[in-house]
Amino acid sequence: MTRIGFIGLGTMGRPMATNLLKRGFPLVVHDIVADRVAELATAGAEAAPRPRDLARQVDIVITMVPGPREVEAVFLGPDGIVHGARPGSLAIDMSTSDPALTRRVASALGAVGIRMLDAPVGRSPGHAAAGKLLIMVGGSAADLDDARPVFEALGDTIVHCGPIGCGETMKLVNNYLSMTTAVATAEALVLGVRAGLPLETMLQVLTTTAAANAHLTSTFPAHVFRGNFSPGFMLDLAHKDLGLALDLGAALQVPLALGAVGREVYAFARAAGKGRMDRSAVVTVFEDLLGVTVRLGGKDSTAER
Amino acid sequence: MTRIGFIGLGTMGRPMATNLLKRGFPLVVHDIVADRVAELATAGAEAAPRPRDLARQVDIVITMVPGPREVEAVFLGPDGIVHGARPGSLAIDMSTSDPALTRRVASALGAVGIRMLDAPVGRSPGHAAAGKLLIMVGGSAADLDDARPVFEALGDTIVHCGPIGCGETMKLVNNYLSMTTAVATAEALVLGVRAGLPLETMLQVLTTTAAANAHLTSTFPAHVFRGNFSPGFMLDLAHKDLGLALDLGAALQVPLALGAVGREVYAFARAAGKGRMDRSAVVTVFEDLLGVTVRLGGKDSTAER
Amino acid sequence: MTRIGFIGLGTMGRPMATNLLKRGFPLVVHDIVADRVAELATAGAEAAPRPRDLARQVDIVITMVPGPREVEAVFLGPDGIVHGARPGSLAIDMSTSDPALTRRVASALGAVGIRMLDAPVGRSPGHAAAGKLLIMVGGSAADLDDARPVFEALGDTIVHCGPIGCGETMKLVNNYLSMTTAVATAEALVLGVRAGLPLETMLQVLTTTAAANAHLTSTFPAHVFRGNFSPGFMLDLAHKDLGLALDLGAALQVPLALGAVGREVYAFARAAGKGRMDRSAVVTVFEDLLGVTVRLGGKDSTAER
Amino acid sequence: MTRIGFIGLGTMGRPMATNLLKRGFPLVVHDIVADRVAELATAGAEAAPRPRDLARQVDIVITMVPGPREVEAVFLGPDGIVHGARPGSLAIDMSTSDPALTRRVASALGAVGIRMLDAPVGRSPGHAAAGKLLIMVGGSAADLDDARPVFEALGDTIVHCGPIGCGETMKLVNNYLSMTTAVATAEALVLGVRAGLPLETMLQVLTTTAAANAHLTSTFPAHVFRGNFSPGFMLDLAHKDLGLALDLGAALQVPLALGAVGREVYAFARAAGKGRMDRSAVVTVFEDLLGVTVRLGGKDSTAER
Repeated sequence: MTRIGFIGLGTMGRPMATNLLKRGFPLVVHDIVADRVAELATAGAEAAPRPRDLARQVDIVITMVPGPREVEAVFLGPDGIVHGARPGSLAIDMSTSDPALTRRVASALGAVGIRMLDAPVGRSPGHAAAGKLLIMVGGSAADLDDARPVFEALGDTIVHCGPIGCGETMKLVNNYLSMTTAVATAEALVLGVRAGLPLETMLQVLTTTAAANAHLTSTFPAHVFRGNFSPGFMLDLAHKDLGLALDLGAALQVPLALGAVGREVYAFARAAGKGRMDRSAVVTVFEDLLGVTVRLGGKDSTAER
Repeated sequence: MTRIGFIGLGTMGRPMATNLLKRGFPLVVHDIVADRVAELATAGAEAAPRPRDLARQVDIVITMVPGPREVEAVFLGPDGIVHGARPGSLAIDMSTSDPALTRRVASALGAVGIRMLDAPVGRSPGHAAAGKLLIMVGGSAADLDDARPVFEALGDTIVHCGPIGCGETMKLVNNYLSMTTAVATAEALVLGVRAGLPLETMLQVLTTTAAANAHLTSTFPAHVFRGNFSPGFMLDLAHKDLGLALDLGAALQVPLALGAVGREVYAFARAAGKGRMDRSAVVTVFEDLLGVTVRLGGKDSTAER
Repeated sequence: MTRIGFIGLGTMGRPMATNLLKRGFPLVVHDIVADRVAELATAGAEAAPRPRDLARQVDIVITMVPGPREVEAVFLGPDGIVHGARPGSLAIDMSTSDPALTRRVASALGAVGIRMLDAPVGRSPGHAAAGKLLIMVGGSAADLDDARPVFEALGDTIVHCGPIGCGETMKLVNNYLSMTTAVATAEALVLGVRAGLPLETMLQVLTTTAAANAHLTSTFPAHVFRGNFSPGFMLDLAHKDLGLALDLGAALQVPLALGAVGREVYAFARAAGKGRMDRSAVVTVFEDLLGVTVRLGGKDSTAER
Repeated sequence: MTRIGFIGLGTMGRPMATNLLKRGFPLVVHDIVADRVAELATAGAEAAPRPRDLARQVDIVITMVPGPREVEAVFLGPDGIVHGARPGSLAIDMSTSDPALTRRVASALGAVGIRMLDAPVGRSPGHAAAGKLLIMVGGSAADLDDARPVFEALGDTIVHCGPIGCGETMKLVNNYLSMTTAVATAEALVLGVRAGLPLETMLQVLTTTAAANAHLTSTFPAHVFRGNFSPGFMLDLAHKDLGLALDLGAALQVPLALGAVGREVYAFARAAGKGRMDRSAVVTVFEDLLGVTVRLGGKDSTAER
């Protein structure tokens, strides 16, 4: 069976790697945090001390690290995958990264005969655990076919977005829209609450008009309306992803005024110490300022906030 | 049967007045455009030369005019409703207006014994024609009960939002979110197209994540994706409504950074001569600039644009 | 000698009216605050109970009220100047107002034979006291000639900006640039302080490059660098004036993205309770958030803040 | 006499290197463009094929390259300075770069015994030619003393801003304020012109109030008011520098809303093909849109635009 290497066992990587083990894939793992490696080893994985060592032992190497800086290091650094992977093997970067970097890494890997896909994921850690991620893939159709059994262990929606880098581009476009809309939604609800409208009334209206969006029906009910800001999607990452999308816009000369301001609203939240809360905690910037709360049924689980 | 006066027979007002006639309500109408009055007269309505004359003859007077300036004139001006309406009669302003003005008008009417509801509407001219509007009502429950048979002739969703002014507030919150999200959606799709992603692929992803919104599934398919920018909701009105929402925010000390910038993106579109197109034509600001189009199946009905 | 009426004896109006008395102009005054009237009466002015009564007694009536709402009331309301002023007399509105309103008032006055100038002022209450205001005049050259002796009692720089309304337009353009630049200056200095640059070093550089502006050399030294935020120019008014400038931009289809965001930064400051401090207190929004201060020589006059 | 290496002979680097030659410093130069090297060789400099070769031959190596990417390559790349410079020698990066990168480079150089200053410059190519640059220095006072004779050949204002990286930080703070203020100035002048105010009148007022800034008195007269947009400071660089300042803000958690939007206004200008014009050409985005021009005396040197 295809032997897989997995680098990056964080919030998303751990359940993903676990699913691969469950499906019976032989697995070699690496992380800079020893405890994370130990946990997967207990579950049946082998450990490798460095990315280059891991790459040497596997057919497919998957990376799931925090951002572009780590992607560059894990692929191209002195201990990087490029120095160990076998010719003909396949590298799949599932991190959220910069598509220009993706293409640069793919080019460096290609020079030594290693194929590459970019395949960042959508949805939540819960979806990762359930094997129901959305996977946005960039690269050749042939390489995607080779990776499909792996992707099917991780997600239930696999979208081929185009050539190498297009998975990352799709992810950034998605997160640009999602993160910007979250701020607009927070502003609108705070305006309504401040003006005296009951939240229930607002939802009754807003979910049936052109104002409808997934934050009103999904992410805010899980967090804002219950006063629970434990992170599904961390605010620091919302800020980072908007930055990557703005960088992409800058490279392509696309002016992105709303997202630019949206990023600075998240920056206010970070400066106020909310960076490790759920991104929807951006609403608490306004709540703190104005002394209102956007809660259903008067709930406010202060303990979690 | 309750005798109704209807002032303002524009894009929305005309089908609404027509529905009242169809339901058998005796109707008196007024508009500054003679042709509009003539059309309704042909259909069975009486005409009144001035708002004050109209108000004198009816139990319920409905106003559906472009904005706050016209609302003030039609209610409080020298020929205004306040000078003609019968004590005990009911005035219903269904225009999109400023809630502070609504309360000022209600107060002036109340001083001479006239009751008032604010009841701006959501959805499209098509919904108006079908009697399927969303009606957001501010005022007392008793007055709403009196108006209910009228509202049921006009809409299928009637939401009591709170005391007088709350209908307008709800409308502004709704339009704030809808108009701001439309700009973010335009930016995101242009970024993706510019980066080489097929629109079909983007929609496959964006409609299933936290980025999902009604523009992706409803307003943009009807306009942007077909290259048809004939107005469902006119861009000049999107700009105006954002201005009213920002004024509300200013009065209540709610900072609204995204909508403030969003309004200026619509201002770019207006300066480029797109004010009388559908609000979604904001996307063409980016299309014109970058030489890309956000269309499905290569469609671009240039004639309509 | 020309008999003058003066309405509005606030921070700016009081020293201005006092200067007219000192120059020997017979003066009739009005204000809604009785104490202010009493103070000027002690100094030699007569009092009039209503604007219309005042207007009846004078050759020139000057208004200096908070904003458009008050301008409309004092000129066109039931007790307004339009109902009392003598044909041939001259009305001078020195308030900061909306140029469209100015033209509407001028038109209403013109219909009953009253001439009008708009003449808002620049600089500080200190300049008002010293008779050294900047006066931006809109209206005919002939009317300006008639008003010149009065203006020379109030200011040392009189600029004829164009026909009626142009004084207000000039004032809004000026305040747009000043208020927006103040926010950019605050952001830049906070960024530098946060990054570890001494304020003295920053000023040494910034005052000699294309970054140089009057806030660095004048308004911030008087307030921010000393930690003294007692109002020279009140933050609530900065927010209001930006709103008027944005309204002007909306009417003329000029997109004004920076000022739109700038206004919302002032809105943050207002929401944080700083509306009655000097507008430069916008810097304290960032200071409070980040725990830094932008002070010279470690000064921070907490008492005044 | 101290032997100097100079890498990067572009718009700024060429006149700077020339000044060093004129002062009699023995000079070795490098650039990726052969013609530039040839020109300096004719004037008496030696040429080196790679940064590492150049570094081997000199006491002080100066770099003046476009941005962070090039700084990283020229110092740390395979042919980089770090691989050639002599222990005890001094590297001076005069490029506009990212302070975090500066510190990373300094650390890598320090590990092999090479000292480093960052010393980006202010003012124009004309000032570079005249040896009158503003030099913002980060690093130790001792190293600055060693570099002073060199700096005195290049500039007339040398400001020690703090430890390594502080020169770059100062430069970014300066450019943040300058670039953002330029957009606000453009918006304000366009608003005034559009409203019918003569530019001369606006300047008479704006240069004497809290709105005063160096663009009104220096950069705009040289460019905008004459319709001459040949680059003093290139618009693409304004966009890039704002991006670097925003990155610094992101790293330090300073929200920078105005600059974020300002950058997107420059992005509009870039998308409209103005990236290689003077940064003040941002005004032409508005001029093109609205059909107005901000010119003195009706001048518009179309040829240069």
